[in-house]
Amino acid sequence: MIKKNPSFKRIALMGRHDRDPIQETLIALHEFLTLRNCPVVYDHETASRLPFKINSVSIEMLAQHCDLLIVVGGDGSLLQAAKIAVAQSLPVLGVNRGRLGFLTDIYPHELATIEAVLNGEYQAENRFLLQCHVYREDHVIASIDAVNEIVLSPDSIAHMIEFEVMVNKRFVCDLRADGLIIATPTGSTAYALSGGGPIVEPSLNAIVLVPMFPHTLTNRPLVIDANAHLTIHITSHNDIIPFISGDGQKCMSIERSDRLILQKHASPLKLIHPQTYDYFETLRSKLNWQSRHRNC
Amino acid sequence: MIKKNPSFKRIALMGRHDRDPIQETLIALHEFLTLRNCPVVYDHETASRLPFKINSVSIEMLAQHCDLLIVVGGDGSLLQAAKIAVAQSLPVLGVNRGRLGFLTDIYPHELATIEAVLNGEYQAENRFLLQCHVYREDHVIASIDAVNEIVLSPDSIAHMIEFEVMVNKRFVCDLRADGLIIATPTGSTAYALSGGGPIVEPSLNAIVLVPMFPHTLTNRPLVIDANAHLTIHITSHNDIIPFISGDGQKCMSIERSDRLILQKHASPLKLIHPQTYDYFETLRSKLNWQSRHRNC
Amino acid sequence: MIKKNPSFKRIALMGRHDRDPIQETLIALHEFLTLRNCPVVYDHETASRLPFKINSVSIEMLAQHCDLLIVVGGDGSLLQAAKIAVAQSLPVLGVNRGRLGFLTDIYPHELATIEAVLNGEYQAENRFLLQCHVYREDHVIASIDAVNEIVLSPDSIAHMIEFEVMVNKRFVCDLRADGLIIATPTGSTAYALSGGGPIVEPSLNAIVLVPMFPHTLTNRPLVIDANAHLTIHITSHNDIIPFISGDGQKCMSIERSDRLILQKHASPLKLIHPQTYDYFETLRSKLNWQSRHRNC
Amino acid sequence: MIKKNPSFKRIALMGRHDRDPIQETLIALHEFLTLRNCPVVYDHETASRLPFKINSVSIEMLAQHCDLLIVVGGDGSLLQAAKIAVAQSLPVLGVNRGRLGFLTDIYPHELATIEAVLNGEYQAENRFLLQCHVYREDHVIASIDAVNEIVLSPDSIAHMIEFEVMVNKRFVCDLRADGLIIATPTGSTAYALSGGGPIVEPSLNAIVLVPMFPHTLTNRPLVIDANAHLTIHITSHNDIIPFISGDGQKCMSIERSDRLILQKHASPLKLIHPQTYDYFETLRSKLNWQSRHRNC
Repeated sequence: MIKKNPSFKRIALMGRHDRDPIQETLIALHEFLTLRNCPVVYDHETASRLPFKINSVSIEMLAQHCDLLIVVGGDGSLLQAAKIAVAQSLPVLGVNRGRLGFLTDIYPHELATIEAVLNGEYQAENRFLLQCHVYREDHVIASIDAVNEIVLSPDSIAHMIEFEVMVNKRFVCDLRADGLIIATPTGSTAYALSGGGPIVEPSLNAIVLVPMFPHTLTNRPLVIDANAHLTIHITSHNDIIPFISGDGQKCMSIERSDRLILQKHASPLKLIHPQTYDYFETLRSKLNWQSRHRNC
Repeated sequence: MIKKNPSFKRIALMGRHDRDPIQETLIALHEFLTLRNCPVVYDHETASRLPFKINSVSIEMLAQHCDLLIVVGGDGSLLQAAKIAVAQSLPVLGVNRGRLGFLTDIYPHELATIEAVLNGEYQAENRFLLQCHVYREDHVIASIDAVNEIVLSPDSIAHMIEFEVMVNKRFVCDLRADGLIIATPTGSTAYALSGGGPIVEPSLNAIVLVPMFPHTLTNRPLVIDANAHLTIHITSHNDIIPFISGDGQKCMSIERSDRLILQKHASPLKLIHPQTYDYFETLRSKLNWQSRHRNC
Repeated sequence: MIKKNPSFKRIALMGRHDRDPIQETLIALHEFLTLRNCPVVYDHETASRLPFKINSVSIEMLAQHCDLLIVVGGDGSLLQAAKIAVAQSLPVLGVNRGRLGFLTDIYPHELATIEAVLNGEYQAENRFLLQCHVYREDHVIASIDAVNEIVLSPDSIAHMIEFEVMVNKRFVCDLRADGLIIATPTGSTAYALSGGGPIVEPSLNAIVLVPMFPHTLTNRPLVIDANAHLTIHITSHNDIIPFISGDGQKCMSIERSDRLILQKHASPLKLIHPQTYDYFETLRSKLNWQSRHRNC
Repeated sequence: MIKKNPSFKRIALMGRHDRDPIQETLIALHEFLTLRNCPVVYDHETASRLPFKINSVSIEMLAQHCDLLIVVGGDGSLLQAAKIAVAQSLPVLGVNRGRLGFLTDIYPHELATIEAVLNGEYQAENRFLLQCHVYREDHVIASIDAVNEIVLSPDSIAHMIEFEVMVNKRFVCDLRADGLIIATPTGSTAYALSGGGPIVEPSLNAIVLVPMFPHTLTNRPLVIDANAHLTIHITSHNDIIPFISGDGQKCMSIERSDRLILQKHASPLKLIHPQTYDYFETLRSKLNWQSRHRNC
């Protein structure tokens, strides 16, 4: 079921690390694309790391100069690039130097595969993001986007936050826990999985709530409709200052009585995969499903 | 947000146990409905257990004689009645003698609440069922419906079946496990919950696959779209004869090379709740979410 | 099997909160003991909170003035008092104002039970503590004791520490996780239980290692002999500064290359229970084992 | 820390399968031992499968003819051989044709390692077994031994047994569950691990109780002293006939009101390992602890 999609004409290359393999791959891709007469554009930061001088553009202007963003690095690099791409409706292709990831599914030596993608032989997949607005009294004081998950965590050690969870303004429960992971299907194989959450097929319009070390053992992971509005209200008698993070990046401290309102982000991430991509194959590989872990 | 729905004019009463409390409640409801001049109809089996003589109809004909089926008993009784009701598009109200259940949410003494429901003050909710077709070679040899879950289990002790799971004809994994639970959101708080599955909001169009005692520890619960076709293929080298069950009722033995195709049932169960019904309140109550299980 | 033990002649009363119920109970116990002509002693801090003037002693000198320490408060108060008591080989009885705890099993109104305990009708139980030495290069720079658990946690958000675990100098594994809980049997029903650890009978000479949100899903809780030496080596390439805590109290930051050596504390906590105490009854009550959480 | 132990002079070879690789290995070991002038003895069943004629002895008489039993096959073969060996106090060495197991840790081509073992360069390790006596009224009607675990299971589908658990005649809890796994430390990495039990170091004198799909979610795995007497009482109102199995072999049906008394077997299994054996290395390898299962 090979489908022919629009081809990609102008490419942005992005790499977020100084590590040699990333640099090597950027240079190899640069040469490959230039040989094909394909225009290549860089953001200032990536350009500054290259060993040659090249013009670059502001990261917010990438979409005006390209129709595909190729990110060189692991899943972490792709998560960072995703937010920039989503804001500009730019599709993203991940090229991984190490072991393939959940989000990056091409090796840099697979130039034939990359060429095929550029020629329109690819799968395009939308992954939704979460958006979290932080309300203090009646004002939004911050907004956080996440491809994988939003996490409410305690400050340092004091491992217990009390908060109230509501779905579409209906009270769900009071939670006493180390925190709460709110994950997209994409994030269901990331931090939420370590916390006991289920694997959620990426196409499902659902989000997973995983209480972290809850005081009440029956506070199990909960899967709800991704169109729901989720409210988390930090109750006023907490004596610690929790904070929230998005995709593993610490964002801000939350005060008592603050409210978090989470909902699906209006714009999705457009992930580009080679034609051979298979989500379940990635699961089988990353989770060692071919192994038999126990005896007898 | 009290909505006025169509009222119910003719009621079928059903009870599946000889136990005194069930009989008492049936008689009390009979008197209550008769006093209101509301026609009451019984299936033959329920009628045969009543201490008075009364006309009854075949269970397959209930819908021709009533517009609401009231089931007296626990969640188990409601599960049985549900299949009859679904086939006839008959809405179902559960009246519970013991502790309230996940599916039965009125106590028999709450006659005012029952009266309100009959008058159109209720919430109507659709819950989807699973349908499982068993293919031997190319023929469907059996079909099983379930409100909660379909379970593939080993015969007696030999605790290991090998089977292949496919979603929409895409290979997911080979599983070596005691079995597999395939649960609806309704069933996510039943057997699947004991097996480590997540709680899934009833309105979500999703099904949960919970491997039972898998050999590979990373074979975690998987949530997929309920519109998917799920295929389970019993591989040919199993030396045991597994069987399938629906909602806890043993159904049939599966032979090597048989295929199970599961999908959403075409007709939903129409559950009737009082206006005060709140799914999350049921969760909080059944799962003791107010308790704090651990010290410190 | 009521055994007659030595009676208690001189009592220390301790309460760590200003909350009214704690104060009321301290005063009631004071009166009760004084009426019985039983000498009562206070540490300076407890005495300072009482509404009457009374002589008090340094907390390190309690054992010279009493043969039983009665702690008024919840499990948290008892954990704090335990360390003082262990250092002085002083037995401890917990009197709880709220719901009974895992460690405090007398209500303040049960004066007859308290009297029976003083008269020698009690169960004495030893619970072992963990001791953690922090080595920097070759020096012990800190020691931490814990009745429940020692926890290695990341600083704030960066949820991933890399460390090496060794048992009796044998390499167990490299862990990439949010942290590690090392719990005594007493602590197995506390934080470790929320993290997926098993319940360990208090009399068992074992400790439980519970990896927190491990990257590798098969890093499951591990139960080892409590006489083992457990070494945790923070590998040198961590870019965060983890810290350790004992019984929920933050203790200190750990630097890269530090080693933690954990072993059983030389002195146990002597817990005094009334004759009617039953560990399994506590479990049944705290964990709601009489409830049935799921439907069908 | 290479220790020199007594050497082994006379060897019994056992293989329980007709599969070619097992036969090849038996023949290769036969030749290897014969060349060394080491007497080899066979039980009748193993001998009957060999392609050459050879004298054999009754399986119950092996210990009179040898001082080491070498089992060729996987963990399953070793479990079967273990019971024969334990009855005769015969040490056991496992040689595995496939992937190494938890119990079999030599490959057949490692003849130098086998030679070293015979010469006394080995680790000897005692693993305790469980013994389960089935009482009907006041009589023992059956006894079952197990190296890994004793399992109480329902007959076929009816997934719910009610039973009472007591430790040293103290009531622990009433359980409503699919069954109960009672595992030794050796068995903690087998069936019990799939059921959510912890990994228990083999040297720990403890047993693990893992409730299978319990109705009450807080019925978590419980670790108790292996010297305890564990009683399981099948309550009289069960309408199904559960059965017990040992090490995956179905043993017998249990009637209502039967009692199971489990305790440590008087005689241990003497496992022989090569000097290089390392329990934690086995864990790391079997459980893929080097993998990183999740993204980010």
